[in-house]
Amino acid sequence: MGEAANITSASAGAPKLQYVTPAEIKRIREKISDRFLRAKILADIFRINALYMIRYTGSGHPGSTFSCMDVMTWLWTEEMENPNEVKADHADLYFSSKGHDVPALYALLIGLERIPFDMIHKLRKFNGLPGHPDVRTPGIIANTGSLGMGISKARGMATAKRLQGRSGKVYVLTGDGELQEGQIWESLQPTANQKFSEITMIVDHNKIQSDVYVEDTSDLGKLEEKFRIFGWEVARANGHDFQELAKVFAHFKTIKDRPQVLIADTLKGAGVSFMTRLADDGFYKFHSGAPTPEQYLAAWREISDRVNANLSSAGLEPLQFESREIPVSSIGQNLERLIPAYGDELVKLAREHKNLVAMDADLMLDTGLILFQKEFPERHIQCGIAEQDMVSLAGGMALQGALPVVHSFECFLSTRANEHFYNNATEKTKIIYAGCLAGLLPGMPGHSHQSVRGISALGSIPGLIMIQPCNEKETRMALRWAVEKNPESTYIRLVNIACECPFKLPEDYKLEVGRGVKLVDGKDILIFAYGPVMAGEAAKAAKSLSEKGISAAVMNFPWLNRVDEKWLQDLAQSYKFVVTIDDHYLTLGQGMQIRSALAGTRPGLKVLSLGLSEIPACGHNGEVLRYHELDFESMAQKIISAVT
Amino acid sequence: MGEAANITSASAGAPKLQYVTPAEIKRIREKISDRFLRAKILADIFRINALYMIRYTGSGHPGSTFSCMDVMTWLWTEEMENPNEVKADHADLYFSSKGHDVPALYALLIGLERIPFDMIHKLRKFNGLPGHPDVRTPGIIANTGSLGMGISKARGMATAKRLQGRSGKVYVLTGDGELQEGQIWESLQPTANQKFSEITMIVDHNKIQSDVYVEDTSDLGKLEEKFRIFGWEVARANGHDFQELAKVFAHFKTIKDRPQVLIADTLKGAGVSFMTRLADDGFYKFHSGAPTPEQYLAAWREISDRVNANLSSAGLEPLQFESREIPVSSIGQNLERLIPAYGDELVKLAREHKNLVAMDADLMLDTGLILFQKEFPERHIQCGIAEQDMVSLAGGMALQGALPVVHSFECFLSTRANEHFYNNATEKTKIIYAGCLAGLLPGMPGHSHQSVRGISALGSIPGLIMIQPCNEKETRMALRWAVEKNPESTYIRLVNIACECPFKLPEDYKLEVGRGVKLVDGKDILIFAYGPVMAGEAAKAAKSLSEKGISAAVMNFPWLNRVDEKWLQDLAQSYKFVVTIDDHYLTLGQGMQIRSALAGTRPGLKVLSLGLSEIPACGHNGEVLRYHELDFESMAQKIISAVT
Repeated sequence: MGEAANITSASAGAPKLQYVTPAEIKRIREKISDRFLRAKILADIFRINALYMIRYTGSGHPGSTFSCMDVMTWLWTEEMENPNEVKADHADLYFSSKGHDVPALYALLIGLERIPFDMIHKLRKFNGLPGHPDVRTPGIIANTGSLGMGISKARGMATAKRLQGRSGKVYVLTGDGELQEGQIWESLQPTANQKFSEITMIVDHNKIQSDVYVEDTSDLGKLEEKFRIFGWEVARANGHDFQELAKVFAHFKTIKDRPQVLIADTLKGAGVSFMTRLADDGFYKFHSGAPTPEQYLAAWREISDRVNANLSSAGLEPLQFESREIPVSSIGQNLERLIPAYGDELVKLAREHKNLVAMDADLMLDTGLILFQKEFPERHIQCGIAEQDMVSLAGGMALQGALPVVHSFECFLSTRANEHFYNNATEKTKIIYAGCLAGLLPGMPGHSHQSVRGISALGSIPGLIMIQPCNEKETRMALRWAVEKNPESTYIRLVNIACECPFKLPEDYKLEVGRGVKLVDGKDILIFAYGPVMAGEAAKAAKSLSEKGISAAVMNFPWLNRVDEKWLQDLAQSYKFVVTIDDHYLTLGQGMQIRSALAGTRPGLKVLSLGLSEIPACGHNGEVLRYHELDFESMAQKIISAVT
Repeated sequence: MGEAANITSASAGAPKLQYVTPAEIKRIREKISDRFLRAKILADIFRINALYMIRYTGSGHPGSTFSCMDVMTWLWTEEMENPNEVKADHADLYFSSKGHDVPALYALLIGLERIPFDMIHKLRKFNGLPGHPDVRTPGIIANTGSLGMGISKARGMATAKRLQGRSGKVYVLTGDGELQEGQIWESLQPTANQKFSEITMIVDHNKIQSDVYVEDTSDLGKLEEKFRIFGWEVARANGHDFQELAKVFAHFKTIKDRPQVLIADTLKGAGVSFMTRLADDGFYKFHSGAPTPEQYLAAWREISDRVNANLSSAGLEPLQFESREIPVSSIGQNLERLIPAYGDELVKLAREHKNLVAMDADLMLDTGLILFQKEFPERHIQCGIAEQDMVSLAGGMALQGALPVVHSFECFLSTRANEHFYNNATEKTKIIYAGCLAGLLPGMPGHSHQSVRGISALGSIPGLIMIQPCNEKETRMALRWAVEKNPESTYIRLVNIACECPFKLPEDYKLEVGRGVKLVDGKDILIFAYGPVMAGEAAKAAKSLSEKGISAAVMNFPWLNRVDEKWLQDLAQSYKFVVTIDDHYLTLGQGMQIRSALAGTRPGLKVLSLGLSEIPACGHNGEVLRYHELDFESMAQKIISAVT
């Protein structure tokens, strides 16, 4: 969660980035016999390498990566037998349910030589180490990043092992904000009822979620007593104290009649003093994104000084590093940022519409609600990571005359609360939903967050009109239309990354349901696209085609589940060739609806549909677009092949 | 839940059905001053009328209707001010989160003259009283039937009222099986954190869920302590003892800093002795469906004798009844029943495939798992009403080498666990899902259960092939194909009602992904349909067309998200007109995929798409098909209008 941050650019004269090789790690593992000191040093080395990975690639989740590092290191290096050797008759398994802490596990797996060393440079890169865990990476046994599924998945693993007569524990780490998800509580009692003593849950209780403190987001109440009353053996320990951890896990191994949970009191950003605190503006700044070069240097220095002090106390030489330059990333000019425009327009509308209430699920920053929250604190409802609760809450509010505007990332909103959207729709109330972080990009968080299924997931719901704006102007228009014009419910699908938008909407452009607007004129080919990423690539493709003598028009067609068939058919009359471009799977996306509306209407009209056909690749935005052949060059090439 | 039962036919010489008029109810309300005796008698009269409604229409949920009747009656007649007058400045609100107990509320609303009296004959009928609550019915303030949403919706209502400066309590009733849903626990803590003392939850703790005891399905653990630890004021009372109820609600009104929950110990089927017990085979038989005429008579006699004894103790005349004949319902001949065929084939496959594990969410009977559970108890995993947990559990099992086959009603499975399907798909394991009670029929449960959105909700997930069989034979084929042939995951969409299937599959029919099979030959028009309901109507439509000299072929096309475009285009070559029929919304259903595959391929080819465009109507199957113009006569008529 919290994926919208862009890469910060490196400043001139930045320090080099430092990392530690497996050989160094091996030296330390062999030379230090005190298991507590050894774990302490190893965890810090993994911190150094995770910090390297995040800073080198320019994105990741440093806070959570650091908070769980000690307990994870202890488990892997001191507790688990045959860790994650899934095929062994006896193996202990480990995975993180929250998943965004995965740089921690990568650093460890690289340090233990389970993942090839040079993958250290490939965090969140194409053919590298995905932004959230994926089973195709060695040592990773479950895909996570969608919160709350961990205990259920662990029980599935343990059940299969029981049926096959295989043994071993299943350790599953969760966040604390993650405990706001109902599925956690749905899964706890059955796990206890069926006496899954082989399951140990560790709550990385770092007290801070995406934006602010857990207790200020949606307080968890009396955690220990809750777990106990759900039938679990409960322990609480300092998650950075290896002696305490050792005691807890030893105790847990004696428990044979129930699952166990360790509430590990940790610090978010643990190991780097300035990463453990909220900033002066009251928000935590190290949940997602990369530290600045200066922050990187300070963090690296703090950790490596501590490692060297510990090595010295054991009579060992200081740590050897390899290093690389901080990559300089270029940031485009004149970028359009839809989320801030959305947030600004929402505030304006809220001033005019007193019944407008905004809700979000622990993503205030990334859904553009900071200004709203400041101006209308009583009309901002922070639901925590509880999408089902939030969407049903909106339903109840709408039944009593409020106008709820519901926010989250589309990947969670459209799927975790899917039945709830429909239930609300059957009541025929008016609700506005904003599904942020929509589409293939950013590519770095990985497929749990690359939302390319929203149209299909929600599009058939009667009375829910889905729209995706292509730039700041259309974003403001879409929201105002949803609040003031559309008598039904609206779903606004929003791209979070800043985009070059090499096109302009006409001054007099008005939204008309099921109709688009021309961005680029052309006479042979008619290209349909929506959203800033695909409309931008389409405009560039048209330019590239025109240089080759092919005249292509580009239509911005923002309606995701409405097509004015007559309008479309009239428009298509003068073209020989139609191209649809989906920021979505091809199956059941917008293109299929356009194609379908064109069936049988025109002799000889050809249609080419571009979009996703497989699960999105992880990587930098350009790499990902290219891999899926949705960059403008691939588009132009495919169009040329199809027309000639 | 538990909606698959068909109407039982009335035996000869059956008793008349008896009901009580509002005038009688008024007489009793006015004449009896003892509020406890009055509530006791009223609740029993509402039982008589609810029993009448269920038996007269032939379906409903008698068990839950009776268990909550006393507490609901007490609230409405003795506790609430301006009950459900949603627009009043001060009004107490009530709704049932489980929703399938709605005949109880209808009987009460009719008795209190909030619903017109002759609606008593229109339970689950077209333009009548829907099978689950809908806000278009007077006195109903929330659509429910999708479990677990109640506390969230109640908090939404209370939030809106707070913002508007309106007052009053919100009473929300839940089931006990319903507490297995994670959303309940997701919503409890925020409701306490925000001190919603205006919310009172009542758990109708009748100890029995769809099939068997709650504690044998998925035990709830220490309920009172759980609620307390989540910050709620907790009371426990006999839900059939009005004195106890009065005390609890009086106490609750003094609580100003937290929400309150009453755990009401009730009997499922309370008020009729033989309805409070499991049958000799270990299953509860009065969850859904109507009692037999003999059971009806015994139940009516037991309740009315008690009412008369109570009236007599108050010196009043016995109850006056009006009566109607039990409608005789005809049951067709040679019906195909897909669910038993599915269940039988699953057992055969489980004998051959030792890693096959079947899971369900409190719907063992309705998903065909009874035989499986008997033969492979250790390989049957009962998850309770916990679809998210179940689907993630399947994911974990598949990661460790099991072949999970996951069962529930499609309306819940495809939407409540929507993100979980996708998460599993990204792991590229093999899982089989059976989405039962799919499609527009049965029409009587209402739109929360009429699942016409499954293709859209799941169809874009890569590696998940969706198939819907048209009869018993194809059901067996589909399941065997999923287990033995398809290397990827399969979703089998199953109709639960018994259907006439006026067609035969060819002896040598084999499943080929994306291709269909001809059921009826014809040369002018090509009709695509899937599933027993729509394939059956299509076959009858073709017959009717042929009688008018129009030759229509009917293709059974079972693939819901795969079209072999080449095959389709070749097939369509010789037809002038294609018709697609969806047991689903038109938007993002199968028809749109077929249409889309035909775009631009054939000059002059016309396509007509039939399917749902609005939220399904509730009513008897024939009425519902006719209303949505999906009965064969409407189909034939529409085809004639389109071709001529």
